[in-house]
Amino acid sequence: MSKYAIGLDYGTNSVRSVIVDTADGRELGSAVFNYPHGDMGVVIDPKDPNVARQHPADYLEGIEITITEALKQAGEGVAENVVGIGVDTTGSTPIPVDAAGEALALQNEFAENPNAMGWLWKDHTSYKEATEITEAAKAQHPEYLAKCGGTYSSEWFWAKLLKCARTDRAVFDAAASWVELADWIPAILTGTTALDRVKRCICAAGHKAMFNPAWGGYPAADFIASFDDGVLSNVRKSLPDTSVNISDTVGTLTAEWAEKLGLPAGIPVAGGAFDAHLGGVGSGIKPGTMVKVIGTSTCDLAVAPMGNELADIPGVCGVVPESILPGCHGIEAGQSAVGDIFNWFVHKVQPGGGVDHGQLNDEAANLKPGESGLLALDWNNGNRTILVDQQLTGLVMGLTLHSSPGEIFRALVEATAFGARMIRDRMAEYGVPIERVINCGGIAIKSPLLMQIYADVLNCPMLVSASEQTCALGSAMAGAVVGGVHPDFDAAVDAMTGIREKQYIPIPGNAAVYERLFVLYKRLHDLFGTEEYADNQFDVMKDLIAIREEQR
Amino acid sequence: MSKYAIGLDYGTNSVRSVIVDTADGRELGSAVFNYPHGDMGVVIDPKDPNVARQHPADYLEGIEITITEALKQAGEGVAENVVGIGVDTTGSTPIPVDAAGEALALQNEFAENPNAMGWLWKDHTSYKEATEITEAAKAQHPEYLAKCGGTYSSEWFWAKLLKCARTDRAVFDAAASWVELADWIPAILTGTTALDRVKRCICAAGHKAMFNPAWGGYPAADFIASFDDGVLSNVRKSLPDTSVNISDTVGTLTAEWAEKLGLPAGIPVAGGAFDAHLGGVGSGIKPGTMVKVIGTSTCDLAVAPMGNELADIPGVCGVVPESILPGCHGIEAGQSAVGDIFNWFVHKVQPGGGVDHGQLNDEAANLKPGESGLLALDWNNGNRTILVDQQLTGLVMGLTLHSSPGEIFRALVEATAFGARMIRDRMAEYGVPIERVINCGGIAIKSPLLMQIYADVLNCPMLVSASEQTCALGSAMAGAVVGGVHPDFDAAVDAMTGIREKQYIPIPGNAAVYERLFVLYKRLHDLFGTEEYADNQFDVMKDLIAIREEQR
Repeated sequence: MSKYAIGLDYGTNSVRSVIVDTADGRELGSAVFNYPHGDMGVVIDPKDPNVARQHPADYLEGIEITITEALKQAGEGVAENVVGIGVDTTGSTPIPVDAAGEALALQNEFAENPNAMGWLWKDHTSYKEATEITEAAKAQHPEYLAKCGGTYSSEWFWAKLLKCARTDRAVFDAAASWVELADWIPAILTGTTALDRVKRCICAAGHKAMFNPAWGGYPAADFIASFDDGVLSNVRKSLPDTSVNISDTVGTLTAEWAEKLGLPAGIPVAGGAFDAHLGGVGSGIKPGTMVKVIGTSTCDLAVAPMGNELADIPGVCGVVPESILPGCHGIEAGQSAVGDIFNWFVHKVQPGGGVDHGQLNDEAANLKPGESGLLALDWNNGNRTILVDQQLTGLVMGLTLHSSPGEIFRALVEATAFGARMIRDRMAEYGVPIERVINCGGIAIKSPLLMQIYADVLNCPMLVSASEQTCALGSAMAGAVVGGVHPDFDAAVDAMTGIREKQYIPIPGNAAVYERLFVLYKRLHDLFGTEEYADNQFDVMKDLIAIREEQR
Repeated sequence: MSKYAIGLDYGTNSVRSVIVDTADGRELGSAVFNYPHGDMGVVIDPKDPNVARQHPADYLEGIEITITEALKQAGEGVAENVVGIGVDTTGSTPIPVDAAGEALALQNEFAENPNAMGWLWKDHTSYKEATEITEAAKAQHPEYLAKCGGTYSSEWFWAKLLKCARTDRAVFDAAASWVELADWIPAILTGTTALDRVKRCICAAGHKAMFNPAWGGYPAADFIASFDDGVLSNVRKSLPDTSVNISDTVGTLTAEWAEKLGLPAGIPVAGGAFDAHLGGVGSGIKPGTMVKVIGTSTCDLAVAPMGNELADIPGVCGVVPESILPGCHGIEAGQSAVGDIFNWFVHKVQPGGGVDHGQLNDEAANLKPGESGLLALDWNNGNRTILVDQQLTGLVMGLTLHSSPGEIFRALVEATAFGARMIRDRMAEYGVPIERVINCGGIAIKSPLLMQIYADVLNCPMLVSASEQTCALGSAMAGAVVGGVHPDFDAAVDAMTGIREKQYIPIPGNAAVYERLFVLYKRLHDLFGTEEYADNQFDVMKDLIAIREEQR
């Protein structure tokens, strides 16, 4: 008798549900719901480009619409054999809630107030608060920063709460607590939204709210109290000392939801996690296998068994126990821009009289490594890993009077590959060796050229995930594990994930040339991106940005 | 009674004659003749892109056609009042001649042989010979190189002769000597082509054939004899120990030419010079006034009174007594690419979906200095002055995901301005202060944006020459001086040259920002272009080129 699991995948613009066969990961049904509020699902403020909110009503509406549609696609006999549900979401996307766990924006008083909605991951209104938190943690608790790349971000939990406390006290005071979207959805499905019942997942808490078992959970109460005369203290008190991971059951599907969705009541719902992390799971992450989620930016995921001591890895976005796989340290790194760099070149620079990605790709594919004489730095949107520095900028050198659009395009692709290698090498240097890389995301599927260049530059096989919806698949795998079909994620990975037949194996001649080019890339990287050398040029890009900001 | 002078201006694709009023430089007539041989006047070799020759017959045919047409335009009463003729040409463009001074290509035996034609300035077939001459001079006579920027070029006299001796012995042996085009035309007009009569101008001899009064003229006979068992010794013996400048009369117009042209017989013909040098004269060069001829590349000209001792100026293309103005050191510098960089961006990169110069210019003009955050190096075609290094390449830094074609275009214009400032500063540092700059060439007239940026970056007024044909005007001024209308070039400059009403005065706010950006430009310049620093990155661009050449 086949058993099925559901994965609920909350993205930036829409939510997707998939129904998969737990035996082989095959997708039987899939449906997408575009959030109706705001601009493509994001509530923005024309006067402040940093604002990005989402209405919680959209999250709820999407559950019923997508699951019932996906089940319909899956056909007869599936719904009654669904054994569990997993959830992944964007994050940090905290939602202010009342004591019952109801989102404030669902109450009439706050229905139209963006501050009472979900503060979407890419909301940057709290950039000043993030800097304050970073400075305070540097002084009082440097260990908090060591696990999250050295800088607390405006995209994260505490910065957003502090910003709300400072700018909309009515909303802030009405909130009994704040719950990450990744925790709120499982709580909704299981009727456990009340503050004394809602579970907090290690993925969101550990990567975005400075939670770590090493210091007993969330940051010390006196640290949190040190901002604005203790305005955050009540929220801190509302938070538990424990967390859940994706192998934990946060509760069982309520009778009400079961009826609405046409599912068996009482099936388990797994602890939530962020989309990229469950994308890693859905791609088949294991110790020694890195997963690269390649999109406009990249998210690079790796795991290391928790039995071994793991040093802090400088410059890596986050190292959090069990944030990806139970029993493993979860390691998250990333490049601030990859697809965005290619999109910038194609759509903003519009080279070649306005050719498209395909034509540039074809021209680039006809070149040999090093043939153009060009070398670029992939810093058009700063450097997330390993330099953790937004005040860095892109560079192209080796330009002649003959340098062509295809040559520049290839140099940009190569630059992102060199950046990827820096991350892989940094992990290996700190005890997380990588033997193979599984790639997912549209670019990994659509660009054989990019994949081959990555294989040659990293001198490491590049595999591509079989699934096109690895995040939703990973969520469904969590559903399968809590549903008892697979004893653990090792088994779930073996049964439910796969890689495509086409694999990218390093070409020795190309790898040798890229080895030499990488030496040059690394010199420019260290020269402009670090203060390691006596004659470093660390301040050149900073000065350019300072002058730019003065002149704007 | 008005007096007139004729300027004959031999360019790369055509020859121009102008008739000007010696009282005010006003142009009364002008005519152009496109050389009929080869590809736009240049005889090329499809198998070797380094070949660039010109048929001497074209030079001769152009004299009669252009002067008679220009005289016709000038109207009645002009021809009989022409008092002198001046000549400028491209160079180094040596022509193999027989003992009578007849070009070998004018003889049936060699009429179709490119090696018997003029070896046009941009012929690079002798690149190996140039390296050999540089090495030999470094070892035996470093003083020869100190006057020509430290490297003997494949564009120059001796390298071309040695190449001919090695590849076409029939032509080489048939040549009694080689005469620069700048010397051959005045000799033709005055019937002084015979080897014991033909005058050699200091401009060509000094800048391209290592002639300098300091060591008694052309290079020592034993130095010249050191190549290929003395194959060049006979040519060396054919050369005089003295030279002429543009205030010298090389002879008077022959009766035959006078009749053909409709001019008075016996009028004086001035010593020749290169086009850029006479362009400097036609623009009004004086001590303290630099002339920039801005085209695909630039030629920067300055003069310093000969009474003062002038140190060698490192990295400057040439310092030759009286090569521009009699009584002054002539100093030639230049940038390997200026208009060519803009043309590369517009026509090769084709940004903005294929917009033209004008649209990019408009977008760039709306920006403030520094506003884009971009900084570029103007080395897409290497660096002629002050680094004298073809193995350098262009660079753009400060790129973001929002960098636009107009921003990049402006950064490229600014880069050429910073490069221009390096040259100006180098001259000032070595005792040739520049108080104002007169610009000529199409870009100077057509781009107010570029002129204002140059004014702001150099923090120095940018003036634009009134004449659009400064080379031809400078030649005519030489005709006026040898014709006795003006006692010297000071007087000729005052009477016959002018600047446009529109002047570009530095804007203090802009200049202040560019002062800061120039500091950054100079750091990159020194970092990648010199070995001055312990942690210099001099080899990065070299390594990229080495890998490029291996992979091609």
